[in-house]
Amino acid sequence: MDRQTLLAAIKERMPEKRYLHTIGVMETAIRLAEKYQEDPKKAEIAAILHDIAKYADVEWMKKVVIEQQLDPRLLDWDAEILHGPIGAWIAETEFHIDDESILNAIRYHTTGRADMTTFEKIIFVADMIEPNRKFHGVEKLRADANINLDDAFRACITHTLSFLVSSQQAIYPVSIECYNFLMREE
Amino acid sequence: MDRQTLLAAIKERMPEKRYLHTIGVMETAIRLAEKYQEDPKKAEIAAILHDIAKYADVEWMKKVVIEQQLDPRLLDWDAEILHGPIGAWIAETEFHIDDESILNAIRYHTTGRADMTTFEKIIFVADMIEPNRKFHGVEKLRADANINLDDAFRACITHTLSFLVSSQQAIYPVSIECYNFLMREE
Repeated sequence: MDRQTLLAAIKERMPEKRYLHTIGVMETAIRLAEKYQEDPKKAEIAAILHDIAKYADVEWMKKVVIEQQLDPRLLDWDAEILHGPIGAWIAETEFHIDDESILNAIRYHTTGRADMTTFEKIIFVADMIEPNRKFHGVEKLRADANINLDDAFRACITHTLSFLVSSQQAIYPVSIECYNFLMREE
Repeated sequence: MDRQTLLAAIKERMPEKRYLHTIGVMETAIRLAEKYQEDPKKAEIAAILHDIAKYADVEWMKKVVIEQQLDPRLLDWDAEILHGPIGAWIAETEFHIDDESILNAIRYHTTGRADMTTFEKIIFVADMIEPNRKFHGVEKLRADANINLDDAFRACITHTLSFLVSSQQAIYPVSIECYNFLMREE
């Protein structure tokens, strides 16, 4: 599917600000894919579709979790956690994406998971550092991503967990599996 | 079992510094038990025994996990996580403690768990704030414990997670279950 068709399809499902974020993720993911020897066309597709479910109805997403027998732990969580797995399901069923690497990159772009591939890390990192992101520390993450993807990914996960704990928000267990995997990899 | 017999029994299993820490936890736990309407005698016993397994051999502890069919996730962790559950098992089998509230307080004094009792929180908090503890923020935790045990416990868990993430250490999943339970309780 070509870029313009995909962009047109997602544009109508999200506010302008989220659309601009998506463009930023797309450009960043393509750049990182070229830098780290992954397929930039696949990065483009995963990036454009990564937030396709961001504004989907939560009850509908939970229904999909049950019907499609996705991880039952998802049922205790809100759109912030649901939109990755459900986005992958929409990409597969509605956009006929059958490349598992693209689907997994969409599926785990918010939570991460243990033992992520380079391609998954590219989408995860691109989502956090794209040019529209503005948070304390983002410049350091952008600099890291230009030097070493694994270091940048590790810094992104650590930043996310620190943010969640300092703002007293619950942490999806799969994110802890991701974090613990990284801490033990050394 | 009286205080002196228990203290003599644990003294020979740990370095002097850990013994002094235990005395500090005992005194703090008794004080908190009196303040928050729990049994100070039970708090004394749980506090004296809480670190009984701290210096036990890790491979031996893992053998106990397998033989006693404890949580299999423990097998991936070191003494810092193992010594709580194994300490409870030693308290039960060697010291003939059959009070489940004492055993659970020992079992979960490092990791916490979802839906902890007041008594468990007392031992957990006493372990972190006893007078020999010296870390940035401990004065605030001590002050919290004098006002509201739930707030102090929440602050202790948050402090522990922040410390683990900032020092890039893995986090035992039961601690996240504990943290998530607290975050959703509000």
